[in-house]
Amino acid sequence: MVGSEVVRLLHAHSSDLAQRIGAPLELAGVAVRRPQRDRDLPVDPALFTADAAGLVAREDVDIVVEVIGGIEPARSLLLTALGRGASVVTANKALLAEDGASLYEAARRGGADLYCEASVAGAIPLLRPLRESLAGDRVTRVMGIVNGTTNYILSRMDDNGAGFEEALEEAQALGYAEADPSADIDGFDAAAKAAILAGLAFHTRVTGADVHREGISEVTAGDVASAREMGSVVKLLAIAERGPDRNGRDSVGVRVHPAMIPRTHPLAGVGDAYNAVFVEADAAGQLMFYGRGAGGAPTASAVLGDLVAVARNRLTGARGMGESAYADLRVRPMGDTPTRYHVSLDVADKAGVLANVAQAFAAHDVSIQTVRQEGHGDDATLVLVTHTAADAALSATVEELRRMDSVRAVASVMRVEGGLG
Amino acid sequence: MVGSEVVRLLHAHSSDLAQRIGAPLELAGVAVRRPQRDRDLPVDPALFTADAAGLVAREDVDIVVEVIGGIEPARSLLLTALGRGASVVTANKALLAEDGASLYEAARRGGADLYCEASVAGAIPLLRPLRESLAGDRVTRVMGIVNGTTNYILSRMDDNGAGFEEALEEAQALGYAEADPSADIDGFDAAAKAAILAGLAFHTRVTGADVHREGISEVTAGDVASAREMGSVVKLLAIAERGPDRNGRDSVGVRVHPAMIPRTHPLAGVGDAYNAVFVEADAAGQLMFYGRGAGGAPTASAVLGDLVAVARNRLTGARGMGESAYADLRVRPMGDTPTRYHVSLDVADKAGVLANVAQAFAAHDVSIQTVRQEGHGDDATLVLVTHTAADAALSATVEELRRMDSVRAVASVMRVEGGLG
Repeated sequence: MVGSEVVRLLHAHSSDLAQRIGAPLELAGVAVRRPQRDRDLPVDPALFTADAAGLVAREDVDIVVEVIGGIEPARSLLLTALGRGASVVTANKALLAEDGASLYEAARRGGADLYCEASVAGAIPLLRPLRESLAGDRVTRVMGIVNGTTNYILSRMDDNGAGFEEALEEAQALGYAEADPSADIDGFDAAAKAAILAGLAFHTRVTGADVHREGISEVTAGDVASAREMGSVVKLLAIAERGPDRNGRDSVGVRVHPAMIPRTHPLAGVGDAYNAVFVEADAAGQLMFYGRGAGGAPTASAVLGDLVAVARNRLTGARGMGESAYADLRVRPMGDTPTRYHVSLDVADKAGVLANVAQAFAAHDVSIQTVRQEGHGDDATLVLVTHTAADAALSATVEELRRMDSVRAVASVMRVEGGLG
Repeated sequence: MVGSEVVRLLHAHSSDLAQRIGAPLELAGVAVRRPQRDRDLPVDPALFTADAAGLVAREDVDIVVEVIGGIEPARSLLLTALGRGASVVTANKALLAEDGASLYEAARRGGADLYCEASVAGAIPLLRPLRESLAGDRVTRVMGIVNGTTNYILSRMDDNGAGFEEALEEAQALGYAEADPSADIDGFDAAAKAAILAGLAFHTRVTGADVHREGISEVTAGDVASAREMGSVVKLLAIAERGPDRNGRDSVGVRVHPAMIPRTHPLAGVGDAYNAVFVEADAAGQLMFYGRGAGGAPTASAVLGDLVAVARNRLTGARGMGESAYADLRVRPMGDTPTRYHVSLDVADKAGVLANVAQAFAAHDVSIQTVRQEGHGDDATLVLVTHTAADAALSATVEELRRMDSVRAVASVMRVEGGLG
C-alpha cells in the first residue's frame, strides 16, 4: 500500500520534487516478494527485484525507503544501507521502538540521515516539529491518540453502548481491526509510537519495553457509561511526560492506557480515522497536531517529505538532526507517575460505608476530589474521582477497596486525564 | 516582549541549545531604543546598544534576530545582514508580506538563511511543515484563524449577542484590541499572514496587496444570530487555495473575510487566544495545526526553533530551504473564486416574492441549495444558502436583490465555508 503510493507520488510530482530538491530523484529499484507480478504502477518492470539485500548494498543507491515493517529483515537491510552511507527514510515504528539506537548509531557512523516522520501518526508532521521547531523550547508533555483501531472500537462503544467484544467484532467485520487484533487492542502499536515520540520530545532513549502498557480489552460498557455520566469519553492515550521521579531526579514517564477525558477536550472529538497529538512546552504552551493517522496516501506523503529533506541534505553535504539522546534521562516506573483515578464502587447503602472508603483512600495519602452517591439500599453506587497521586498509591488503594466487606464490587477503575474536574 | 523572552530562553536553555546545535550560542548584542534603561534580563548591560545598523553590520555577528516589526528600519537592517551573509530569524509578517521577495533574494545572494516561523500563528510549527514535511505532497488549500483580536470580538458577539462596536470596546478595555484597531479588524494582519502562508504552501510569490481583504467591522449582531440559527458561527478566515482561474490556468486565490462555518467544524471551537490552521493536501488529506497565536513566550519559542536551525546550518555549511517561488502562479481575482453565500432577505410575504428572488439567482447562474422562510405578512424573512459559484456572480446577484421592489432589505450577506450543509 504505502510503497505503491510512494511510487505514484514520485512519478506524479517528479518535476515539483526536482524543483524542491534541486536535482531529480531517480527510482533505482523496488524490492518486492514477487517481482513478476503485474502491477498498475508507473515503473519500468525491470526495476522490480526480489533481492532486497542486493538493492540496499548497491553503491549507486543514495537513499533507501523502507516500508516493510517488522524487525527483520528490515533491520539488517537498513543497517547495511546506513553502514555504507546511504540515507534512510522509514515508516517502521516497531523497529525504531525496539532498536532505534542501533539504527541511529549506524547512521552516525555512516554519515547518513535516518528520517522517520511516517512512523508515528501517518501524515501528521509531528516528529519534525518536535525535533526542530521546538528545538529551542522545553517540551514537558506529549499526549495523543495514535491508534485508529482502538479509537474506532472505543467510539462505537460510546456511540451505542456496545461492549468491547461486540465493538471489536464490528471493527473486524469492517476491516478496521485485524483478525489477530492484539498489536492494536493490547496497546503494542501505541506503545511503539509513544516510545518514538518520547525519545524525540525529550532527547533521550526510550524503547517500547520502557512503556507502561495497558490495552482496551478490559474496558467495559459500564466504564464507558460512567465516563458519559461525567461528561467524559474513554480514549486510549499515549502519554509521555518529563518530571521528577520519587527521588526528585529528572526523568521521563511513558505510558499507554485507556483514560477518561472531558468531552470538551480537543482530543475527545478526534474521530475514527484521525490521530491527534497534544504537545505542551514551556514557552510555546499547548499545541495540537491533527490529521490522518494511517493509510497509504497519508503515510506516503510523510515519506516523501522526508525524502525531499534527505535528498537535499545529500546535495548540500549536510546532515539532518540525528538522534539527540544527550539528555539520557531515566525512565520513571509507572508507580511513581502522578495520575488521577475515577473509581466506581457497588456498595450497600448503610451508614459507615463512605467513611470506610474515605479511610482507605486516606491511608494511602490519596486525596478525593469528588464523591457522588447514586441509588439506595443494596444497590448503591459510589463514584469517586481523586486528586493527583502516585499511581502506586492509587492502585494500592483500589486493591484495598476490593478487599473491603462493605464494598460489594469495584465496578470501574480508570485513570482520568485532560483536566477532568 | 518577544525580544525579552528570546533573551530569557537563550539564557535558561543555553546548555540544551548548545547540545542541539553542536556549539554554544553567544549573544553578541541587543539593539534597543534606550540602552541605559534598567531591564530585568540575564544580559550583560554592556551588550545593549542603540546602534542597530552598526550591530547588524558587525562581521562577528553570524545570526540576526529581528523582532522590531514594521517595514523600516527592519528592512534595511535585514538587507544589510543578509547581504554580508549573516542569517536572519524574523517574526516580521508585515515586512515579509510586503517585500519578502527582496529579503529572499538578498539571502540567496549572501548565501544566508532567512527563517520566519514566528511571523504566522505564533508558536505553532506551521511554516516548516508546509515547506518541508509536505514538500513531497501537493497542498491544495489552507484555511485558518490567524488573528486573535478579531477572534475575541467575534466570540463575544456569539456569546452574548453583542454588536460589533460593543464587543470592540470590551476588547479594547481588556487590552485585546489596540486603541487604533484597524490592523486587526480590517484584516490587514490576517492578510499579511495569508500572503506568507500562500507563498510557502504553493511555492509562489504572494504579497499582502494580492490578498482580497474584508474585515469584521460590517459584521452585525443579526449576521451572528443568523449563523447561530444555522448551527454555525462567524469567524474571520484566512484562505489560500490553488485552482484554475476563469481561463482554466493554474492559479492561487488568497482572501481574508468573515464567513460562517458549522459549529461541528474543528475551527469553530478555536478560542480567543488560540490560532488554528487547516491544511488540505492531495496525499496527506486534512491536517490541522493548533496553538497559541501570539504572546511573548509562544513567539519566542518559534524564534528559538528557527535559531537552532540556522545555527546548525552555519555549522554544517548547509542552507535551509529558501524561498521556493518556482511555481510562479498567477493570483486569481476574487471575482473568479468559487464561494458560497448565505443571504438573508426581509421581504413582504406575498405571492411571487420567492419566484422573483429565485429568478435573480438563476439570472446569474447561481444555484440555490436551501431556502427557509421565517415569519409572515410584512415581516417575513427569506434565508438562502447557495451552491458554489464564482464570487462575482454571487455579489452581482446580491446587488440585484438590493434593487428589487419586493425585497425590503438585504439583512445579511456572508460567505459560508467548511462544508456548511
